[in-house]
Amino acid sequence: MKKAINAPERVVVDMLSGMAKAHSRLIKLLPGTQVIVRNDAPVSGKVAVISGGGSGHEPAHAGFVGKGMLDAALAGSVFAAPPLEDALAALKYCGNENGVLFVVKNYTGDRLLFDMASEEAQRMDIPVRSVVVADDVAIEDVARRRGVAGTVLVHKVAGAMADLGRSLDEVYEVAHKATLLLRTMGIALGPCTLPGSQSPSFVLDKEEIEIGIGIHGEAGIQRERILPARKLVERVLEKILPDLPFTSGDEVAVLVNGMGGTPLMELYVVFNDLEDILSSQGIKIYKAYIGEYMTSLDMSGFSITLLKLDEQLKTLLDHPCQTPAWTQM
Amino acid sequence: MKKAINAPERVVVDMLSGMAKAHSRLIKLLPGTQVIVRNDAPVSGKVAVISGGGSGHEPAHAGFVGKGMLDAALAGSVFAAPPLEDALAALKYCGNENGVLFVVKNYTGDRLLFDMASEEAQRMDIPVRSVVVADDVAIEDVARRRGVAGTVLVHKVAGAMADLGRSLDEVYEVAHKATLLLRTMGIALGPCTLPGSQSPSFVLDKEEIEIGIGIHGEAGIQRERILPARKLVERVLEKILPDLPFTSGDEVAVLVNGMGGTPLMELYVVFNDLEDILSSQGIKIYKAYIGEYMTSLDMSGFSITLLKLDEQLKTLLDHPCQTPAWTQM
Repeated sequence: MKKAINAPERVVVDMLSGMAKAHSRLIKLLPGTQVIVRNDAPVSGKVAVISGGGSGHEPAHAGFVGKGMLDAALAGSVFAAPPLEDALAALKYCGNENGVLFVVKNYTGDRLLFDMASEEAQRMDIPVRSVVVADDVAIEDVARRRGVAGTVLVHKVAGAMADLGRSLDEVYEVAHKATLLLRTMGIALGPCTLPGSQSPSFVLDKEEIEIGIGIHGEAGIQRERILPARKLVERVLEKILPDLPFTSGDEVAVLVNGMGGTPLMELYVVFNDLEDILSSQGIKIYKAYIGEYMTSLDMSGFSITLLKLDEQLKTLLDHPCQTPAWTQM
Repeated sequence: MKKAINAPERVVVDMLSGMAKAHSRLIKLLPGTQVIVRNDAPVSGKVAVISGGGSGHEPAHAGFVGKGMLDAALAGSVFAAPPLEDALAALKYCGNENGVLFVVKNYTGDRLLFDMASEEAQRMDIPVRSVVVADDVAIEDVARRRGVAGTVLVHKVAGAMADLGRSLDEVYEVAHKATLLLRTMGIALGPCTLPGSQSPSFVLDKEEIEIGIGIHGEAGIQRERILPARKLVERVLEKILPDLPFTSGDEVAVLVNGMGGTPLMELYVVFNDLEDILSSQGIKIYKAYIGEYMTSLDMSGFSITLLKLDEQLKTLLDHPCQTPAWTQM
């Protein structure tokens, strides 16, 4: 597959170097690592919020490093958990007596990594807590649910809480609450292809789509014929809405997330139907985020995330932040 | 081709409705039109900056409507100039005694539209000037050069100047200066497909790319085999740099623009090589913008824009703006 890269084995290093140089007023690359930290890090007097995972999900996670969101983001190889050394480097650089919150997507590799890093943090006398995001309702078994695009909303509220100078327990509690109120599901119109691979992660014919895809090129839980946008949105909502459940009178933040290869035009069409359906059910959209937040390389498709809001979460979403991929005035 | 839309003939209406609803704190749809205006429009006491063109280039142009950038954006059908009635509606709504600047991409249909609208403005006693953007160096003949991604930087500096309360002539002069200092060229790794069409705008084999593409699915000026990102960047720069020329000691803004189907990962790899080459030639990057600004539906590829800066342009790029697709604090 054609990609604008130099070599598969260099793609993450080149990308991180490009990100750090493009946004040098906001972020920097920690030398000798694949860790992006705030330009003004280490920031004292606050809890450090650290996240990360495999690459291929850009702008996640490094694009969300900056005041009001993450203090550091770890980047593994494409679709692979970051190395422990990088987690320790981030911990040493950003950790302080206020403590560290790890925001972890629910994958075995990522959980193992952050568990080991937590043990090291305790040895280093850095208070640490972890919150695991498992927002993907495509998987019935709650324990096996993957962490997908909704993770970015957890970054936002945890980052805002930390920016307000709140304690580690308070930052953890908000992040944990958000994970409980968060649901996501995705649809692929086309697969992704890993750098260096000659074949896509799955094959769809001209009329087929995958419902309930993950962010690592996995096929979905169901294969169907392409439907109008409104029907696609209905398919997603019929899994998301009863799961929490979201009901009339709720206020929500919604994220219509592009998977990497989907034009903004289509994401807005999807949002238009989403807004219409939610409003007809008495569910009020407090904030809408439309664009690429958590991608899967060049996959074509989108995911829809709903986060049920209370007054605290609304205030935290409104809190200012300044990162390469998310600026809130 | 699979798209997340309801029907080809509804795609622009659905999209604009979705944009207006998603960003209702910033923008609104002018009833009975395909014109997006600032939520707080009409804004008195300043020049109104109006742009627009065919749809399929999202976030351009409606995504750049807001304080510090555009007052109104017209959206035609996909790849087609907007209707005159919409230009007149925007003019009537936003025009005032301070005048209107039209920012026009250099296409026959768009120029004709804004010429007719200018005549109407004069009849309505609204002072009006137009600036034509023709930044695409792929075309040798300067008069035939297309307006492409660099147009967004013209929106930014003209919008900032208008936001500062400067006169129509002053806003025009800055916008015109920017067009003279602006150069862009694009490369496609894959074609786009129009909504409702069963075939792409051109066909490339597994190893082929198009160099010097436009934003309407046109094939480029040259077809080659895929190259490493660094070579792709060199191909673009060997057309852009001598054209102005950009030389050692210059300060520039760069825009690495995704064409709609290209993941951010690849845009950062491209920027990494771009920064390396420019810095080796003594050209200093003052600001870098990486992402989707002026797309061509689901085309895979990117364009590179360089804008040579002076102190005034630097100040205007730094000026705050708040739009759906560009927030500058």
